[in-house]
Amino acid sequence: MDFRAFHPPLRTLMGPGPSDVPHRILEALGRPTIGHLDPAFVDLMDEVKTLLQYVMQTQNELTMPISAPGSAGMEACFVNLVEPGDKVIVCQNGVFGGRMKENVERCGAEAIMVQDAWGSAVDPQKLEDALIANPEATTVAFVHAETSTGAQSDAQVLVELAHRHNCLAIVDAVTSLAGSPLKVDEWEIDAIYSGTQKCLSCVPGISPVSFSERAQHRIRNRRRKVQSWFLDMNLIMGYWGQGAKRAYHHTAPVNAIYALHEALLMVHEEGLENAWERHRRNHDALRAGLEAMGLGFIVDEAHRLPQLNAVSIPAGVDDAAVRTRLLREHHLEIGAGLGDLAGKVWRIGLMGYSSRIENITACLGALDAVLTDMGAPINHGVALPAAEKVLAAA
Amino acid sequence: MDFRAFHPPLRTLMGPGPSDVPHRILEALGRPTIGHLDPAFVDLMDEVKTLLQYVMQTQNELTMPISAPGSAGMEACFVNLVEPGDKVIVCQNGVFGGRMKENVERCGAEAIMVQDAWGSAVDPQKLEDALIANPEATTVAFVHAETSTGAQSDAQVLVELAHRHNCLAIVDAVTSLAGSPLKVDEWEIDAIYSGTQKCLSCVPGISPVSFSERAQHRIRNRRRKVQSWFLDMNLIMGYWGQGAKRAYHHTAPVNAIYALHEALLMVHEEGLENAWERHRRNHDALRAGLEAMGLGFIVDEAHRLPQLNAVSIPAGVDDAAVRTRLLREHHLEIGAGLGDLAGKVWRIGLMGYSSRIENITACLGALDAVLTDMGAPINHGVALPAAEKVLAAA
Repeated sequence: MDFRAFHPPLRTLMGPGPSDVPHRILEALGRPTIGHLDPAFVDLMDEVKTLLQYVMQTQNELTMPISAPGSAGMEACFVNLVEPGDKVIVCQNGVFGGRMKENVERCGAEAIMVQDAWGSAVDPQKLEDALIANPEATTVAFVHAETSTGAQSDAQVLVELAHRHNCLAIVDAVTSLAGSPLKVDEWEIDAIYSGTQKCLSCVPGISPVSFSERAQHRIRNRRRKVQSWFLDMNLIMGYWGQGAKRAYHHTAPVNAIYALHEALLMVHEEGLENAWERHRRNHDALRAGLEAMGLGFIVDEAHRLPQLNAVSIPAGVDDAAVRTRLLREHHLEIGAGLGDLAGKVWRIGLMGYSSRIENITACLGALDAVLTDMGAPINHGVALPAAEKVLAAA
Repeated sequence: MDFRAFHPPLRTLMGPGPSDVPHRILEALGRPTIGHLDPAFVDLMDEVKTLLQYVMQTQNELTMPISAPGSAGMEACFVNLVEPGDKVIVCQNGVFGGRMKENVERCGAEAIMVQDAWGSAVDPQKLEDALIANPEATTVAFVHAETSTGAQSDAQVLVELAHRHNCLAIVDAVTSLAGSPLKVDEWEIDAIYSGTQKCLSCVPGISPVSFSERAQHRIRNRRRKVQSWFLDMNLIMGYWGQGAKRAYHHTAPVNAIYALHEALLMVHEEGLENAWERHRRNHDALRAGLEAMGLGFIVDEAHRLPQLNAVSIPAGVDDAAVRTRLLREHHLEIGAGLGDLAGKVWRIGLMGYSSRIENITACLGALDAVLTDMGAPINHGVALPAAEKVLAAA
């Protein structure tokens, strides 16, 4: 066989992640590798921790990236906080609540499911009913920003309910971190995990997590060992802990940490609130364009995430054919529907570095061109002016 | 706080990994990110699989990188092949056999330990005795190349014993892959995991694994679900499987896969047997230098790994002080002893791109200089000529 170097096509990434990675982050990623116990690397780890605390708005000492993607961050939260026989209340309003259920059950625990329609926020009343009906529950888990639907739930209210009923709260913030308000300490979240490839605009592969004092207390006082050696926070703390002395646990993904550091620096330079505001402003522009075109959102306005826009595919339009043409002709990636929404929605990401005016123009222009050419029932030629009007007013 | 871009110091990496990463791999790593379901990325995944099959010498369909470091590759093998109540025979002759025990126990299974001295190879007779004494055992696990000691065990013989007693064999090849002979199909290994940051000279963070038909059969016919959702090969197969249709499981570490592809390309270009031979030849030169200096190996010649050289620290020499000076003055990283060998040995890696003449010269020169300056009982000025003689004769 004939193998050659791989030069990726240049894409505009407006799916549910990865989002566009800025050049300076790619450059940081490609800097020379050093050892995972090198004093210079240990200093970098400390800075990454401090910057993550800022971006997560927390003073939690146990704040760090797990050396694997967001799915492993999710698993880290569950395997550390849940024990066999526990009851865990899982609020599901999309794909990722279902993955939480899988995690609970694989820990040998029982998942009490609180279901809301896909595209809706989690209903606090339903959670409260479940908490009252299951006083022995130890943990509540929910998704702050459902990547599969673009719906946002009220994390503060849900965490408060969990605490009122003596449960710890595990929160999926994969898509919310750095894209919309998220305040780990103020909202008293106990365990949170995120991804690097969404609103941090870093490469995929590692997963920031943070654990409150209450969560740490539970982890230190477990009845049995964490079922995953790799994700056992008791061991990981020895490597990511305080001071110059770090115990070898696993070989950290050194270059991925360089990239995360640079991504966090960029958020710090912009200012977290400014980043949230940018996501909001660009969402307003994209939304104006999509709605002018005739595409409707599946999430009501009050619960819509600015960074993940799920719109209904117009009747009679071939989902895959549109996405294929966008990718082949316009080098634009938008996301397909997941699970129950497959074939029914497109998910348009405006995350991190992808949340910028050039991308809005590229996306609205390409969608208008391709849908018009395919004879889809949309309003042609109005999307870009509508978006521009919003941007000009901002 | 004042945060700045991180520019790592330039090191010569001769510890137990990460090893020096060639510029072309770092460059591949930093290429623009594309989506994990992009058709161009799916094609790349296929090439990575084919190249991994070559480097592992296997036709196993289920050959791919796990999206996390070697420790997670280890865990992937155990959680997929072991079920609660199973008996697993673990051969331990260093740190990583102990980690295998942890994995077995966290799967709810019983680990029958077969102990050999650290620095020795696994004794096949002891394994056979354990297999006879435990006819209900389902699995044998051992480390092919113990990174903590530099000892190599006879994988072919150990696997054959396992099969004769109806066990599957899990093999740790973290340090052997691409550095010394390893033939997954010829030796009939059932499950194998490795790392990218050793003899592949890629950045750390992902872990190549491969499963035989027998192993796949066991995974498909488990009594209960794999306890890790993230590492469940039944699900991962849907993403890394055959054909153009890939089911989303997790977001792959896209850029790390670019880098792995380039690293595998380099092995393919050099030729696997040539890479093994290079590691052998450079080891001979380093060994000649170290022995001339008066440093002794802890592993006997027959079982010594060419890529990981564990030498005894001379009496009265301050381990940490030497390593600190090597790092600060010579920008050279060598490895400390792990576990029982902490403070007693140095581990000098000659792995992948670190296995080259410049590194041998740098290492012998720096060690000679620092140890002589510290008044250590070594033969000064003889290491480099001894190494040169071996290289000249090769």
